Amino acid sequence: MKLVLLSGGSGKRLWPLSNDARSKQFLKVLPSDQGRAVSMVQRVWRQMESLGLADQSFICTSRAQVDIIESQLGDVPVIVEPERRDTFPAIALISAYLLDVEGAADDEVVAILPVDPYVEEAYFQAIVGLEQALEAGDAEMALLGVRPEFATSKFGYLRVDRDGRAKGEASGGTKDPLRVSAFVEKPPVELAKQLLAEGALWNCGVFCFRLGYLRSILQARGLPWSYAAILEGYGTLPSRSFDYEVVEQAAKIVAIAYSGTWKDLGTWETLSDEMEHPFAGIGTAVGCEDTHVINELSIPVVTMGLKNAIVVASPDGVLVAEKGYTSALKDVVKPFSGRPMYEERYWGSYRVFDYSRLADGTEVLVRNVELFTGKNLSYQQHARRTEMWTIVEGTGDLILNNRMTQLQPGDVVQVFAGMWHAVRAHDRLAFVEVQRGLSLDEEDIVRRFENWDEIVAHCAVLS
Amino acid sequence: MKLVLLSGGSGKRLWPLSNDARSKQFLKVLPSDQGRAVSMVQRVWRQMESLGLADQSFICTSRAQVDIIESQLGDVPVIVEPERRDTFPAIALISAYLLDVEGAADDEVVAILPVDPYVEEAYFQAIVGLEQALEAGDAEMALLGVRPEFATSKFGYLRVDRDGRAKGEASGGTKDPLRVSAFVEKPPVELAKQLLAEGALWNCGVFCFRLGYLRSILQARGLPWSYAAILEGYGTLPSRSFDYEVVEQAAKIVAIAYSGTWKDLGTWETLSDEMEHPFAGIGTAVGCEDTHVINELSIPVVTMGLKNAIVVASPDGVLVAEKGYTSALKDVVKPFSGRPMYEERYWGSYRVFDYSRLADGTEVLVRNVELFTGKNLSYQQHARRTEMWTIVEGTGDLILNNRMTQLQPGDVVQVFAGMWHAVRAHDRLAFVEVQRGLSLDEEDIVRRFENWDEIVAHCAVLS
Repeated sequence: MKLVLLSGGSGKRLWPLSNDARSKQFLKVLPSDQGRAVSMVQRVWRQMESLGLADQSFICTSRAQVDIIESQLGDVPVIVEPERRDTFPAIALISAYLLDVEGAADDEVVAILPVDPYVEEAYFQAIVGLEQALEAGDAEMALLGVRPEFATSKFGYLRVDRDGRAKGEASGGTKDPLRVSAFVEKPPVELAKQLLAEGALWNCGVFCFRLGYLRSILQARGLPWSYAAILEGYGTLPSRSFDYEVVEQAAKIVAIAYSGTWKDLGTWETLSDEMEHPFAGIGTAVGCEDTHVINELSIPVVTMGLKNAIVVASPDGVLVAEKGYTSALKDVVKPFSGRPMYEERYWGSYRVFDYSRLADGTEVLVRNVELFTGKNLSYQQHARRTEMWTIVEGTGDLILNNRMTQLQPGDVVQVFAGMWHAVRAHDRLAFVEVQRGLSLDEEDIVRRFENWDEIVAHCAVLS
Repeated sequence: MKLVLLSGGSGKRLWPLSNDARSKQFLKVLPSDQGRAVSMVQRVWRQMESLGLADQSFICTSRAQVDIIESQLGDVPVIVEPERRDTFPAIALISAYLLDVEGAADDEVVAILPVDPYVEEAYFQAIVGLEQALEAGDAEMALLGVRPEFATSKFGYLRVDRDGRAKGEASGGTKDPLRVSAFVEKPPVELAKQLLAEGALWNCGVFCFRLGYLRSILQARGLPWSYAAILEGYGTLPSRSFDYEVVEQAAKIVAIAYSGTWKDLGTWETLSDEMEHPFAGIGTAVGCEDTHVINELSIPVVTMGLKNAIVVASPDGVLVAEKGYTSALKDVVKPFSGRPMYEERYWGSYRVFDYSRLADGTEVLVRNVELFTGKNLSYQQHARRTEMWTIVEGTGDLILNNRMTQLQPGDVVQVFAGMWHAVRAHDRLAFVEVQRGLSLDEEDIVRRFENWDEIVAHCAVLS
C-alpha cells in the first residue's frame, strides 16, 4: 500500500502568512514535542515517520512548493505536477507515477491524504485499515469518514447505510466497513443535525483505491493514462475535483469511521486554538484576552485591550481581526494579492524590503537574499534588469560572465542586463540586492544550469 | 506683542507615528480646508497666518526639529535650543533672543503657546487679549484659562477669585481679567468637580509677560541673561518647568477665560476623534465600528470586526489597541524605543528597511534616502563604516575624495571608511544605501560643511 500526501493550493485563508509561495501547510505555527514550532506538513510527515509509514509515502505538489518541501522535510519522495490543476489530474498523475515509475502493480492500493489536517496517530492507523476495508467490502473506493462532533455546514458529509451504523469504528473493535450511500456537500445546519442523527460522517478527503481501477477509468474515457502521456498532456485533463470525476461515480464505496481528533486548521480562528504561545515575535500585549499575535517583522507589534482577536504581521501585510471574522478572509484579501514579499526555497530564502514602480515605468525592488551553506543560485541571465548586490555576511563564489571570483562581506557586485551569473555560498551568504529595470518578473530570467559543477564546467570551456 | 510657539518633546504617546525624530505635532493626521491632511503645527501656524499674527510669531524648538519645521512650514522664524531641556531654560532663551537679537524693548509683551492644541481662532484672539489683561490687571503674568467642559484629573487647574467669576470671558463682552489665586495640578476627580463648581479653569500652558520681567528674574538669581550668555551656559540653567520656576512664584497673576474648542490631542483616543477618515493608507476594513486605521507602510493592513480600536502601522512598529487603553501607551512602548525608522529632514527623508547586528558585532543598515531637488547632504566622513549606494531615481552631483562626478539611475557608489563625501540632488534623488560597519551611530560622522558652494570650493583647492 502506498500513501500520497496531496500538498495543494496556496490559498489566502491564512493571509498574511500564506501567499502564492508559502501555503498554510508550511507555516511554522504548531507546537512540537521538542518545543520548537513546526508546520502542518512537518507535523504530518513526522507522525507518518513515527508510525513507520514514511517509506511507503510520497508527496504530490506543484513545482513552486518543491523547494520549501525539501527545506522543511529534507529529501522526501516528491511527485511534481507540471502545472497547478485540480485533484482529478493530480491523482491521475500520482497513480500513473506509482505504476510506471515506481513499478507498482495494478492491484496495489493507494491512499490519497490531504497534507494539512490536525490529527492524532490513530488517523493514520485508520487509513492503513482502508486497504482491508476495500477488500472486505469488495469496493472500488474506500474513504475515511470522521465521526462528527457537532453539526456544521462547513464540511461535506458521507451518508452511510443505517444497518452499518454500529460497525466500522477504527478505534473500536470491528473493522467491517460501512457502505457509503450518498454525499452531501456543506449542508445547512438543520440538515447537518439530521445527518448527525443518522450517523453520517464528515468527508475528510481521504481516498483509497487500486491503481488499476483509476487507470481503467482513464483508458475508458480516452484520456492519457501512462505517466509520460499524462505529463505531456496534463493541460488536457479536466481541471475538476477527484470527488466529482471519480469518487461520486464509483459503483461501490465503503468507509471507515475515525472518531479521534481531526481539525481543519484552515482559518485563523481554528488554527489559533492549536497555537501554544499567545505572542510570537517582537513586541508585547497588554490587557488582551483570548488574543493571538504572530509578528514576523523586525519591528515591534504592540497590542492593548483586545479580546478574541488575531494579529498577524508579515512582510506581505498586517491582519487584525476578531477571530470570528477570519473565515471571510480569503475574499477580503483578494485585492491585495501582489508579489510575495517572503519566500523560502531549497537554497535559502529572500525577503522583499520594498517594491516600487517609478513614473517612467522602471520597477525597483530591494530585497535581502540568504543562501544556505553549499547552495547556489542557478546560472542565469536577465534581459531587462540590472542587479546590484552588497554582500552583508558570509563568503561565496561568484561567476560573472564566466569568470569566477571570491565574495566576502562588503563586496559589491553589479550584474548588468545580459550578464550570465551564478553564486554559491561557502558559508551562509547574505546580500542586499537592488533590482532595477523594465521587467522584474520571472519571464525576464533565462536559467541554464542548476548544478554548480555543471556551471563551473560550462564556464571553464568558455573562458 | 510677540507670540512664540513652544515646539517641545518628542514623546511616545502617539507611537508608532511619533518617535525621537518625529514628534506628534508633525504628524499629518488632521483634516484641512483643502481636504489634505495637515499636522498640528501646520494647522496652528495657518490659523495664526489667517489672523495676521504670523509676522509677530516665532517657533522655539530643538536642533532636531528644525529640518521638519522648515519642511512643513517653509521659512519661518525659529529660535533654536542648544539642547533639549525643560520650559524654564527654553523661555529664558526666547526672551533673551527677542530682546538681544530682535531688539525688542523691555516692556514688550510676549505670549508663549504650546504648539499642539486643537483650537478655534477665538483662542488666538483671547491670547492677543492677554496683553491688555496684563495691563488692566497690573499683573506680572497673564494666563489663558480654558473653561472646563467636564471634571477630569488629566489637566491642571487655575483657581480664580470667586468675585471675578462672571468676568474675563474672552468670547463674552468684558475683558476684565480674573485674578488667579492658586494652581492645582491634576486633581482627583472629586476635587476636579469641586473646582468646576468654583469656576476654576484648565491651565492650557499659555503664559504672557513682559520681556524685562523675566530678564530681571534671571539677573536677580545670578543666572545668565543675555542671549549669548544663555546660549553659552544653557546647560547651567535649571532644567525645570517655567510654571514652577516663574509662574507660580509671581506676585500677581491674572487670567482670561476661553470657552471655545480646546482639545489636547495627546493620545490616539483623543486624536482619532478629529481624524476625518477612518482608514488612511493601503488596505481595507470589514465590519469595523468606531475604528481608525493609519497605515504608513507599503504593505496592506486588513482589519475585520474591530470595535473602538486604533490600528497604526509605521516603519517603527504596529499598534493595535482598544482606544481606551492608549493613554498607557507611553510606558508600554518604552522598551521598544530603538532607532527611528523614518525621519523627515529639511533636505529630504529616509526610511530604514532593515537593521541587524551580526554575530561578530558588525551592524548592517539598509535604508532608502531621498533628497529634495537642489538639496545636499553635508560633506562628511565616517571612521568605522562603509556605505554602498545604488541610485534608484533622479540625478545629482557626487563628491568623493574631492572629485566631483555625475550620478544617474543605476549608478553604484562605494563610500569606504575615511572617504570624504557629499551629494547633491539635481532633481529628486533617491538611492538605496547599505551601511556596514562597527558603528553606525551619529558619533561616527564627522561633518565639515553644509553649504554646497563651500564644499565645492574646498574640494577645488584640494584637488
